[in-house]
Amino acid sequence: MKPGSSTGVSCRLLFDRTVWPLKITSNPNMVKTEVAIVGMGTVGSGVARLLLDHGDRTARHAGRTLWLSHVVVRNLQQSREAKLPDGLLTNDLNRVIRDPNVKVVAQLIGGVEPAKSIMLKLLESGKDIVTANKALLAEHGPELFDRARQLGRSIAFEASVAGGIPIVTNISQCLSANQIISLRGILNGTSNYVATRMDQDDLPYAQALKKAQEWGFAEADPSYDVDGSDAAQKLAILAHLGFGARIRWNHIPRRGIDSLTKTDLNYAKQLGYRIKLIAFALQSDSGLQLTVAPMLVKIGKPLAEVRENFNAISVVGDAVGPVFFHGQGAGRMPTASAIVADMIDTAVGRTGLTFKTLELWSDGVPRVEMAHPGDLAGRFYLRFNVRDEPGVLAKLAGILGDNGISIASVYQHTADGSNQDSIPLVIMTRDTTEHNADNAVFEIEKLPCVVAGTERLRILD
Amino acid sequence: MKPGSSTGVSCRLLFDRTVWPLKITSNPNMVKTEVAIVGMGTVGSGVARLLLDHGDRTARHAGRTLWLSHVVVRNLQQSREAKLPDGLLTNDLNRVIRDPNVKVVAQLIGGVEPAKSIMLKLLESGKDIVTANKALLAEHGPELFDRARQLGRSIAFEASVAGGIPIVTNISQCLSANQIISLRGILNGTSNYVATRMDQDDLPYAQALKKAQEWGFAEADPSYDVDGSDAAQKLAILAHLGFGARIRWNHIPRRGIDSLTKTDLNYAKQLGYRIKLIAFALQSDSGLQLTVAPMLVKIGKPLAEVRENFNAISVVGDAVGPVFFHGQGAGRMPTASAIVADMIDTAVGRTGLTFKTLELWSDGVPRVEMAHPGDLAGRFYLRFNVRDEPGVLAKLAGILGDNGISIASVYQHTADGSNQDSIPLVIMTRDTTEHNADNAVFEIEKLPCVVAGTERLRILD
Repeated sequence: MKPGSSTGVSCRLLFDRTVWPLKITSNPNMVKTEVAIVGMGTVGSGVARLLLDHGDRTARHAGRTLWLSHVVVRNLQQSREAKLPDGLLTNDLNRVIRDPNVKVVAQLIGGVEPAKSIMLKLLESGKDIVTANKALLAEHGPELFDRARQLGRSIAFEASVAGGIPIVTNISQCLSANQIISLRGILNGTSNYVATRMDQDDLPYAQALKKAQEWGFAEADPSYDVDGSDAAQKLAILAHLGFGARIRWNHIPRRGIDSLTKTDLNYAKQLGYRIKLIAFALQSDSGLQLTVAPMLVKIGKPLAEVRENFNAISVVGDAVGPVFFHGQGAGRMPTASAIVADMIDTAVGRTGLTFKTLELWSDGVPRVEMAHPGDLAGRFYLRFNVRDEPGVLAKLAGILGDNGISIASVYQHTADGSNQDSIPLVIMTRDTTEHNADNAVFEIEKLPCVVAGTERLRILD
Repeated sequence: MKPGSSTGVSCRLLFDRTVWPLKITSNPNMVKTEVAIVGMGTVGSGVARLLLDHGDRTARHAGRTLWLSHVVVRNLQQSREAKLPDGLLTNDLNRVIRDPNVKVVAQLIGGVEPAKSIMLKLLESGKDIVTANKALLAEHGPELFDRARQLGRSIAFEASVAGGIPIVTNISQCLSANQIISLRGILNGTSNYVATRMDQDDLPYAQALKKAQEWGFAEADPSYDVDGSDAAQKLAILAHLGFGARIRWNHIPRRGIDSLTKTDLNYAKQLGYRIKLIAFALQSDSGLQLTVAPMLVKIGKPLAEVRENFNAISVVGDAVGPVFFHGQGAGRMPTASAIVADMIDTAVGRTGLTFKTLELWSDGVPRVEMAHPGDLAGRFYLRFNVRDEPGVLAKLAGILGDNGISIASVYQHTADGSNQDSIPLVIMTRDTTEHNADNAVFEIEKLPCVVAGTERLRILD
């Protein structure tokens, strides 16, 4: 069969089959770049599949065979979804380190250690790295990137943000003629899946999260996903790339979906909005604003229509205008798609050229200053729990007015006769600042007619 | 001012201002790659603006200054939107050809000649080319690309398809680990603008087109845009890149929006669909299907929500799954964004590496065979004009059944009492093939109860 002849083209997604024996389809007589995989979990098995079962495509796009020489795992006995050809699997990292023919390594182990030590060892032994480990980059990017630069090596990390959506290449290469003005992303699939379940199936947070875990869209410990940390790590990477920021991820103000209530999702929907966990970056005249938080997005806008575990990013460049990307943010084959594209780019030499000019995590002066978070302008959704007595709205409106906040609309749920301690009062504001909204809420919460449990969410315009 | 300091960052789109004096912001002491522009129309002035007014960004991303040395125009006297610094403008192409320091040329003149001769001359004098001229590539791609390969030069053409959406890089580089399964694009902004006006403002085709011309979204002679040719040229380029096809654009079955009626837009809307000009590619088991035609897209699906002059592309890769891109498909600054990104890629050396492995318009064996257009499966919207007499539906349904076509729904407009010669009968079919739909329509149109003017549109699933 000639490689890629139409009879050899499969027209089906590669997602569905989970256990399969992999075969070597690469042409052994073609010029080779030898590669290795360290870590054979979900993503690793997807990468192995593309390299072995579909060697013709990597060969075609790289102009050479990407020849998989070693697959390093911790435990040789563990059962795996992909059955590798004999002789590939090893638990000895030194087999890769001491093999001078291996040029590119897909390092696919999660967490910080031993991932960091392994990456440094691989760089020092002359390997170029491809990784999906955003937590490692977010924590130790400067050290790893400096070391790679010193050694004349590269680290490619397309898969670390938004999985199958090639946002890293798009921002750092395709949109390089632009000053990026803003970036709004749904970057955490778990949170979006949970928010979708809460919205569509009318489930409370805990039940929606349980469903996500049952369906494999949330880890056993989902805290970094649902508290906004994972999205903040990804936003930090994009802020480095797109704006020349030098911020650490844990300095980004963040809030997750773990405190969201069905009540607010329902009010938002009645007002024509969905609540989404948004990673937000804005180049304002006073500097760069970064934040991760659940926000109200108008139904019908592309970001509001991102469902299930999908990711999406809306970027505005000053030349290109708005560009919107939507796709799978995680999962075996979408992530493997990004990893293997990076391996091809690295083998061909493109990554090396890009890496030299990216000022990623360098010690250089940041290109932007960070704006004060309190200055971030925008509209707000405010839900107060108030006692059902005369004059309440006047008091609240007075305090908002004193803080320079105009009211766009008020939504008051009339008491239904049951003996409720308080009733919700929802106020949508006109443009104001984070600072003013904070002050107003602080003062309003001191009123005797206001009960605990205020919600304050940003409205994305 | 240090380049790109936060005070130097503009947070506004570059679209709005149309007349401006350009200044050189590049650092003359930095390592330079000298570049030239041939053709100073709308896009050319945008490119000059990014290179001159925003030299810091190209320098940052290229690791060197892209130094604009010459701008070649046909007529020196013509008034231009951008005022160039002294000494740049010339009407002598030889100034570029004989200047060995100029490495990269943005060739921004439209049409086939003299664009083709100029491109060959530039390649032969050792220049790498960046172009937005899809018509030239669609007509003479093989000759131009072969010549560039022989000479060890490159042609970059991101701007030739979908303007500011970086679809060329995404398909040829970012998604290179995938077999592309399908591609559905809104690739012609003029058609989409006209269809949007027909839909939203309830205008007939001719008036909507007039509005497009008034607003600058359609040329004085819009025939290539509205008859589907422009979209077919772009689809041919994407089919080469994504599927390894070797088809000429004018062999792609195509129909434009110029024969669309408000009647069908309105029926489609009542049934929950919008009609969009879709460039369609599907890798089926019987080969590659390519077609350009107005199709019904379900309201709420991303492609149905693409409004005004925007472009969008939905790609399905077998590993990455569905990826969706949306952005400005034309215009000065979006197109300039793509051109300048290509100039940076070329100056850095990435384009050269990519160009070597792209099998674009090579004489090599195509990777796919073309499927028979009649085999293309799908659902159809059929509108017949029928006489208002008993038994008509039975006759039509009988013929559809004889051709193996099941009916999903029927929509019959009851006569409103006015003395109409015929009434419309709309039928939505279940899955069938182009071939069967053609046969059925052919037979139905022979019925005495059927009046001329049948409409047959594909429904995009």
